[in-house]
Amino acid sequence: MRISRRNFLGLSAATGGGAALGALGWSMRGEATSDDRTQPASARRIPFGGFHQSGVTTPQQESLVFAAFDVRAERLDDVRTLFLEWTDAARRMTGGEPIRARQGGFSDAPPDSGETQGLDPSRLTLTFGFGPDFFGTRSDARFGLARLRPPSLVSLPPFAGDQLDQARVGGDLCVQACADDPQVAFHAIRNLAALGRGAVVVRWMQQGFRHIRAPVPLTGRNLLGFKDGINNLDPSDDEQMAANVWAGEEGPAWLRGGTYMVVRRIRMRVEHWDSVSLSEQERTFGRKKVTGAPFGANREHDPVDPRSLPPDCHIIQANPRTAGSESERILRRSYSFADGLDARFGELDAGLFFVCFQRDPRRQFVAIQTRLSRGDHLREYVFHTGSGIFAIPPGTRERGYVGQPLLEGDVTMQ
Amino acid sequence: MRISRRNFLGLSAATGGGAALGALGWSMRGEATSDDRTQPASARRIPFGGFHQSGVTTPQQESLVFAAFDVRAERLDDVRTLFLEWTDAARRMTGGEPIRARQGGFSDAPPDSGETQGLDPSRLTLTFGFGPDFFGTRSDARFGLARLRPPSLVSLPPFAGDQLDQARVGGDLCVQACADDPQVAFHAIRNLAALGRGAVVVRWMQQGFRHIRAPVPLTGRNLLGFKDGINNLDPSDDEQMAANVWAGEEGPAWLRGGTYMVVRRIRMRVEHWDSVSLSEQERTFGRKKVTGAPFGANREHDPVDPRSLPPDCHIIQANPRTAGSESERILRRSYSFADGLDARFGELDAGLFFVCFQRDPRRQFVAIQTRLSRGDHLREYVFHTGSGIFAIPPGTRERGYVGQPLLEGDVTMQ
Repeated sequence: MRISRRNFLGLSAATGGGAALGALGWSMRGEATSDDRTQPASARRIPFGGFHQSGVTTPQQESLVFAAFDVRAERLDDVRTLFLEWTDAARRMTGGEPIRARQGGFSDAPPDSGETQGLDPSRLTLTFGFGPDFFGTRSDARFGLARLRPPSLVSLPPFAGDQLDQARVGGDLCVQACADDPQVAFHAIRNLAALGRGAVVVRWMQQGFRHIRAPVPLTGRNLLGFKDGINNLDPSDDEQMAANVWAGEEGPAWLRGGTYMVVRRIRMRVEHWDSVSLSEQERTFGRKKVTGAPFGANREHDPVDPRSLPPDCHIIQANPRTAGSESERILRRSYSFADGLDARFGELDAGLFFVCFQRDPRRQFVAIQTRLSRGDHLREYVFHTGSGIFAIPPGTRERGYVGQPLLEGDVTMQ
Repeated sequence: MRISRRNFLGLSAATGGGAALGALGWSMRGEATSDDRTQPASARRIPFGGFHQSGVTTPQQESLVFAAFDVRAERLDDVRTLFLEWTDAARRMTGGEPIRARQGGFSDAPPDSGETQGLDPSRLTLTFGFGPDFFGTRSDARFGLARLRPPSLVSLPPFAGDQLDQARVGGDLCVQACADDPQVAFHAIRNLAALGRGAVVVRWMQQGFRHIRAPVPLTGRNLLGFKDGINNLDPSDDEQMAANVWAGEEGPAWLRGGTYMVVRRIRMRVEHWDSVSLSEQERTFGRKKVTGAPFGANREHDPVDPRSLPPDCHIIQANPRTAGSESERILRRSYSFADGLDARFGELDAGLFFVCFQRDPRRQFVAIQTRLSRGDHLREYVFHTGSGIFAIPPGTRERGYVGQPLLEGDVTMQ
């Protein structure tokens, strides 16, 4: 349930305008503050710490800003400092506070860019990850961490049909910001980038949106007009998450309780799609458009019977429902995007920013996408223009920082 | 106040699943519909018809998708058909219905792309306009409408400091879609573009967002972190709207009750801005950052005293508060944007999609922007990358269509 902002303000009015200003890190300079809003209470706040990072099994928010960063720092110490500062900043921002605690002076740059002042935390989550290139190679060990690169953190292979824009691929690090307010998600990434200046540069970014203001049973639709996520794993099912999402004993100790994130920017040829028949659209997916029911069934959650479906339809190619394919299952957490016109084609640059989490990308995303890239009938209507893979470390303890066991090179810390 | 979707569904459940499917224009083909959501009631619906078009004085929504179109049709009849169809489509979509009424067959392309099925209208407004080029010139009269071009619909002059990207300038027509859900706004533009295929092509598009989930007194902040819109005209003040926004006897009859829209895509140099002192930021605007109070005052709505302000600060350059400047006042209705990285500079491609409405752009936007482009201290931190100007015809009567008096060339119809 959405909580009325009016109630928030009512509840939190007792904290007073001055307290809010102090918390925001601006100098007050004796100004009247009676028409400033106080910080909201914790009701729309998702705690940052915990055994796992938030933003994986957290119920999905409305807005995404994803950023991939390249590391410019050359010393591991500087990367540690970056993650110490980013962790502190993430704790603050997810709590609805400005990015830095310090009070800025009148002749200093403000400690926070300020566009979220007075807004509530909007269920902001910040999820940090490390890409394969962060670890360097045996010949170029970079931060001396090559031995800690998990074998599962492969560089994604090329897939048939990829049309990757090199300006939207890879990254040493990533931050996924999700919130119910695009201004809150953008603010977080913008201020983390500013905080990291000198140590990191933004390599690429992606905004996304998703309609989630509905009771849980309303499955969201993608920009092809089909329900998306009907057969997703259930993030509230700990057993499913343990089996399919959270990294365990099979990898390095620093990643236990973490996961692997794969992102793919999937352009949809919406003009082409809009011109083909309902029959062709439905046989492409293997589901009815209105109800979401698989062919041969009546409701979206009815069991899929592969014998009722075209063998090249999307839902069978994505999940063949064989004994072996059970181990490929991933947790999807995608957002639609609409980035104006694609000047190359004069077509809408819109589609799905596909986000998934898994325990081992080799047996999960890579296996699925290899099959899809060869046999999925949906290939005719979509192509991939961006790509990234990241190891997502576990959550942080009260005084720890994200990635600490990795960055302190201690495989026993976990 | 936000209306709970749960209540919506409760209220509208009586209409039944079948009715909703029929209304959506898909063939039902005997499928079970019990887990499909019914269409929402009218509570979050803004009527399309009326004396003025909606989307001008309508309380601002959270999301914008703006599209400029070029007309490819060569016959005025085809333009009339386009506007007949667009008007019908706009009436339907603002009412939460799919774009076309006709039932699609199984072997037809679906009449609506479908991604808003089950969503409420989300206060969708669609606002249509005609750019200067639509009217052609005396030597190339185009649709024979050159004589109906309002003298106020000037081509915007170049302004000092403009860095216009020609891929984001102009357009024969425009459609502004605003809604509280980005999926609803995008859906409308995407389907209008599809409906217009053959007659129009999208020239450029812009998405925007704005935090509006707050009591009215919370003035929104732009991405420079400053409150934006403190001294805006009050859209609920009919007298102000008549004096400053709605076109009257001074122009052609077909535009009476309409207005003029100017859009400017204003890139903010956010990295530069974030690095300068609070003192410099505040003197740039002439307001305190936290409170929004003008220099020399205590609260955001306190009167502005030009003697307390640097003469080149933004709020004085935008509105000198002289007797003459009163006639320049515009109704602003802008959205923030964040379009990833600007590859040219490796900086965030973020800023303000400035939208304003006025009675005469010559004495209003052009006068203001001419002054700002020469003397505004804010010039150091922003530059304009996109631009458009459009005549926004009045609203439609029950059986009329948008732009009818213009497109039927009848200056007396109004």
